[in-house]
Order: sequence, then structure tokens, then C-alpha cells
Amino acid sequence: MEKLTVAVVGATGAVGTEILRVLESRDFPMDTLVPLASPRSVGRSVRFRGEDVPVQALAADAFQGVDIALFSAGASRSREFGPAAREAGALMVDNSSAFRMDADVPLVVPEVNGDQLGQHGGLIANPNCAAIILTMAVAPLRPLGEFKRLVVSTYQSTSGAGALGMEELLEQTRGYLEGDEPKPNVFQFPIAFNLFSHNADIEENGYNGEENKVMEETRKILGMPDLPVSATCVRVPVLRAHCESINLEFDRVVDLDEVRSAYAAFPGVQILDDRSNNHFPMPREVTGTDDVLVGRIRHDFGRPTALDLFVSGDQLLKGAALNAVQIAELLAASR
Amino acid sequence: MEKLTVAVVGATGAVGTEILRVLESRDFPMDTLVPLASPRSVGRSVRFRGEDVPVQALAADAFQGVDIALFSAGASRSREFGPAAREAGALMVDNSSAFRMDADVPLVVPEVNGDQLGQHGGLIANPNCAAIILTMAVAPLRPLGEFKRLVVSTYQSTSGAGALGMEELLEQTRGYLEGDEPKPNVFQFPIAFNLFSHNADIEENGYNGEENKVMEETRKILGMPDLPVSATCVRVPVLRAHCESINLEFDRVVDLDEVRSAYAAFPGVQILDDRSNNHFPMPREVTGTDDVLVGRIRHDFGRPTALDLFVSGDQLLKGAALNAVQIAELLAASR
Repeated sequence: MEKLTVAVVGATGAVGTEILRVLESRDFPMDTLVPLASPRSVGRSVRFRGEDVPVQALAADAFQGVDIALFSAGASRSREFGPAAREAGALMVDNSSAFRMDADVPLVVPEVNGDQLGQHGGLIANPNCAAIILTMAVAPLRPLGEFKRLVVSTYQSTSGAGALGMEELLEQTRGYLEGDEPKPNVFQFPIAFNLFSHNADIEENGYNGEENKVMEETRKILGMPDLPVSATCVRVPVLRAHCESINLEFDRVVDLDEVRSAYAAFPGVQILDDRSNNHFPMPREVTGTDDVLVGRIRHDFGRPTALDLFVSGDQLLKGAALNAVQIAELLAASR
Repeated sequence: MEKLTVAVVGATGAVGTEILRVLESRDFPMDTLVPLASPRSVGRSVRFRGEDVPVQALAADAFQGVDIALFSAGASRSREFGPAAREAGALMVDNSSAFRMDADVPLVVPEVNGDQLGQHGGLIANPNCAAIILTMAVAPLRPLGEFKRLVVSTYQSTSGAGALGMEELLEQTRGYLEGDEPKPNVFQFPIAFNLFSHNADIEENGYNGEENKVMEETRKILGMPDLPVSATCVRVPVLRAHCESINLEFDRVVDLDEVRSAYAAFPGVQILDDRSNNHFPMPREVTGTDDVLVGRIRHDFGRPTALDLFVSGDQLLKGAALNAVQIAELLAASR
């Protein structure tokens, strides 16, 4: 296989850092890394395959010779520099929300709808982290019955707001324990020993931007544009793994053994559902791991055609970097 | 009004301490406080109305002359010493789960079903904290339509596991920031920067004990024994206020202005639903306050006959001590 040149846009951010690690650990078929970041990061270097690679300034002329460009620097950077990357001939994998809902842009979780990738026109969108984890948790169950309704409440870590969000949690907590008044900065409200409705702005339908992403992207990824879905997204004082409490209604009563078999057969998902030891998915154990963990598998007490699930996934890995690199692997393999 | 003698069983615990403060701040019509606790607390005293009142050992003969006994020392203590208290002529308000589901025991949230109090036989049960907060959030909406289904996911603070649970969160967090490995004690798993399925044991229906309490008690308090309900209870690294993400389905589309009017007219509930400032109920602001805060009021995106809500209440106050004292106030007034 031809060896590729890969650009990582936002190479010094929380997700960019994980992308480099994942490219390395999965031995991505590449010769050359082009780490790009904002001008203030120029002069720094990133460690990759045992070498220090100097960070270059993100600019329109930075994509010459790049085969695949992994963007993870926010929607405005993707909109500003994505066209230049694509004109230079790079395939763009975009971790931002900029193009996800465009009808001609595949929105891909490889295990769930990797077949959509064939239809790309040079740009593939990486979904919202909570939508990736949600679709990984429900997609394996599609063969068991028709989905009638999905209600999800999230427990989202501070890594979703980047490295600064994680730092704010640690610093504020340290301060709280020393008796300081917290000084919110990344988040509007104190996050130490607190939680709050997700910080994305509320939109016209009463949902915040994060919730609308989860709902719309989940429908698109599953290919179920009319699935009734409701999401409540909440930020919790956790560093880098999301959890989700999911209620999924079918058109029939599904068998729990079949549910477990479906998960066991699905790549990227693991069951952690140890009722006798009360051991279920939690951020501390999923952090740094690739798979989405699924537990608390049970029939809804009041509505037997529904299932309740509690799931957890590393926000920076399957929720972002790993999924993006998996997309890039499919692109590399199909060149 | 006759001045009463009030015993508080578990007077040195997290809830007992709050009961004393609430009795004081609400100027409960009492002359004499009898603080009872386990023998190891004897020798200590509690501060009440400017005086140090010696703690007495909880024993069968400790209830002579007691008019009202507020029990908050766990279900086994309530089972062991409740009969003695009642034989001595005390009215028992029990904060434990021991008798809540007994058919002849009223399970009371005064604002929701205070009318049930008239039927007591000397024992009134104080509901589970998460059930109190849930029923306070949904009961005001009963006039707007028939409830068809309730799905709730909780974000429960460590105070639900008592003062030791709160201490464990603080100590473990301090240790984590200094690089120590957490040593779980009260909770089975580390709680610092983590969250997990509620620590109550899993029961036969696949729900844990806390979830079954929430579901069964909610039905009983609302007087809706057949309401389809599902709860997922999760412990989060927060000190003393619970939050709940609620999806409530009606038999019709309810008007959001009517929802807001219903809350405004209901005692003990306040709306905090500031969409333009993204300001909604959160533990940090509800801690130490009496009312349950309700926000994120919106129609379910996928099911317009359902409402989504996000609520928060102080676990130690309305979730426990305040509700118990409110029950005692009704008892005192009806003597």
C-alpha cells in the first residue's frame, strides 16, 4: 500500500494529541505527519514515532502533498481551511460540526454505517462524541426489532470542552478544597463538585446545540430520519469519558439473551453488566480504552417493549480521535 | 398549641443534623429535644436553640414522654426501635425504607399528597430522596393531562450515603489531586472524578434497590399504581444535591405556558429556566435551599405529547430532613 502524508489540524489540542497517539498505536500506513495548529503553537513540536515533528501554522497553503487531513480545530477552522485542503487534493475527515448535516457529506461511525463512506466527495464528517457513543450502543440491536423511540440523558465529561475544560475541572477542584471561590472561565458555572445542563446555547426548539446534534446526527448515522428521539445533555465533573442513560423502545419485547448476543457479535462494543458485583460501565474504567461499554441491560419496568441501558465511552478516543482515524483507515484502504 | 417533646433518632448523622437545623429554623412547636444515636455517640452533644443537648443512647426505653419521633438511622434501626417508640405513644416519622410500601402506612410528600396523612396509624413514612424530588417535579402537572409514562435518569449526590459518603468524595478527590490511588470504602468504586450506577444491590427485575424505591414510591405517592415508570439511578461526584432528567408523557400535548403556571402555583417548587443565559437547576445553587428547582422545560423533540424537564433538589433538605419535619408539622397541627 502506498504510504500517505497525513495532516492533523489542531495537532496540539486534546483531540489532536489523541489522534497522533492513535495513528501511532494503530500503525497507520503513513510516511509523513504534517501537524498543523494556530500560529501561537508554532515553535512547538509534537512527538510522533519517536521523533519531534515541528508544528506548522494552519494556512491555506499548508496542504500541498497531503493525502488525508484530519481536522479537529473547531467548526470555523474547518469552514475556513477545509476548502483549501480539498483543493490541494487531500481527503478531509472533519471532527467539527461544520458539515455533518450536509446531505452530501457522509457522517460515519465505521462499525455502524461504514458503508456510507463509499459515497463521499472528498469530505467525511466525524460525528459528535455523544452521538458516536449512542449509536454504538443502539446500532447492534437493529436486527432485534424496529426502533420506535429513543430517550437519552448524558453524563458528559469536561474533555468535550477540550484540554482547557479538563484543566478547569482540576484547578477549580483544587481551589475548592482549599476554600477558594471558583472562577469559571471555560464553563459559565463552576464545575467542581457540580453539574449543569450542557453549556451549548439553547436553540429554538428548547434543546441546546449539543442535544440537537445528538438527536439529528443519531438519526442520520442510523439512517432513521424519523426516529422519535429526545436527548438531555449534562456536563458532569469527570475528566474524559461520557456516560449515557438510554431508554430504547422497540415494536416488540426483545429477548435479553439476544441483546447480549448482538453486542457480543458487534465490533467496538463490550458488555460490562455484572449484576452480582454491581459492576457496570463507568468513566474511570473506560478512560484510555477503545471500546464502548454497555451495561445495566434490562427491560423497562413500565414498558416491556423498551430496554434500559447505561453505557460509557472515552470521549477523546471512540468519541473523537479513534473514530476519525478509523474513518481515515477506510479511506486509506480504498485508495 | 401544646408544646411537644420530639426525639430525633440518628441525631448525629447527616440527615439528623439537618433535621435539628430545620426544627430550629422553622420554629417547630416543641419544648424538649431528645437526641438519640448509637451508643458510640453517647458523650457527644448536639447544638439546639443555643444549648448543648446531650446525645442519649438509642434504646427501647428511650421514648418515654416523646410525642413525635423522627427516625433517620436506617431501616434496621427503624424496624428494631420503631415498635417501642409507638408503644410509648410517640408518632413515628420514618425516613428509612422499612415501612414505606406497607399498605397501611402513608408515604407522604406534604405538597403532593398531604391529604394521605389523615389515615395514619401512628407511623408515617418519609419517601426516598429521589422519589420526593421526582414527585415534586411532576405532581404540579397532574391537572394538565393524564400521565402515560415516566422515564427518569438521576444524578445523585454522595450525601445519599450519609456524612461518610460526602467525606469520601472530598478525601478521595484530595488524594487523587496528589497522585494517590483512591481507596474506596463507603462506595465500592472510586467516586472522585468518576460516576457509577447507584451502589444499591441489583434486584430480580434488573433494577437496583434505589431504582425500585423510586419507581414504587413514586407510584404510591402520586396515587398512580399502574403508571409505567422506569428509573436509572446514578451516583455522581457531587456533595449534597440530586438532579434528575425527566421525560414525562401525557395523553395530550400540554401547553408550556400552562406548565409554567402550574409550577408557579405549586408550593415548594421554583422554576429556573433561563434559556437566554443557559441557567438551569444545578447542585451548587440548590444546596442549602428548601425548594425543588425545575428547568429545561420543553416538548420532547420526537414525541410532542411528552415533556422533558431537568430538576434539582437538596438531598438532605427536601429530599430528607425538611420533608420529615413538614410531616411532623402536619402531625403537630392535627393533634
